Amino acid sequence: MPDIDYSSSSVISSDRVNGTAVFGAGGEHIGTIDHLVIDKISGKIVYAVMSFGGFLGMGQDHHPIPWAALKYDTSLGGYITGITEDQLREAPAQSDDWYRDRQWEERIYTHYGLPYYWV
Amino acid sequence: MPDIDYSSSSVISSDRVNGTAVFGAGGEHIGTIDHLVIDKISGKIVYAVMSFGGFLGMGQDHHPIPWAALKYDTSLGGYITGITEDQLREAPAQSDDWYRDRQWEERIYTHYGLPYYWV
Repeated sequence: MPDIDYSSSSVISSDRVNGTAVFGAGGEHIGTIDHLVIDKISGKIVYAVMSFGGFLGMGQDHHPIPWAALKYDTSLGGYITGITEDQLREAPAQSDDWYRDRQWEERIYTHYGLPYYWV
Repeated sequence: MPDIDYSSSSVISSDRVNGTAVFGAGGEHIGTIDHLVIDKISGKIVYAVMSFGGFLGMGQDHHPIPWAALKYDTSLGGYITGITEDQLREAPAQSDDWYRDRQWEERIYTHYGLPYYWV
């Protein structure tokens, strides 16, 4: 299959989202997107699993962030989030199988003040 | 980053959607998903670019299908679509830059009887 050049268009390939930068509300680089998590049934993107690369001393672990907390910023060429450092530090700890732990999902969506994606 | 095992959960990594089978309404295998196309601003998946592998004599070219035309079927372990062979054959031909050709997007969404994703 030919490689499609989506650059400078309003869309992006799911392959290319991986590695995209994420910035805080002040424009500071806080991490990158490792991959997206899609709810099979609704077909919606529900999390961006981010790598913070040591930001806030959070280590290299993966951190799922509700997709609704990220917005694309064309001038930055990446995603911007209103999530604060305090919110990141105080986020509910996740177990290894957070993606099938509805109670954890409730806690994380509530923590970031977002409506549940599964309602 | 650790590889997360999303198998037998209700979610899937965007990486793993690629290569997922697509079945027709009768359960027949018609192709596979090559990658997803995401609208940067809304954060919604808007197309699955499919490979039909010669099905219907459509060759190996990529064919963008509106994401809303696919539904995940847990028993099949893949996506099912109500799009018919006739609809596929008669779909409006795409230019190389279909993803930034709103007129073509209008034609394809109208062809498959789906509401525009950009409204």
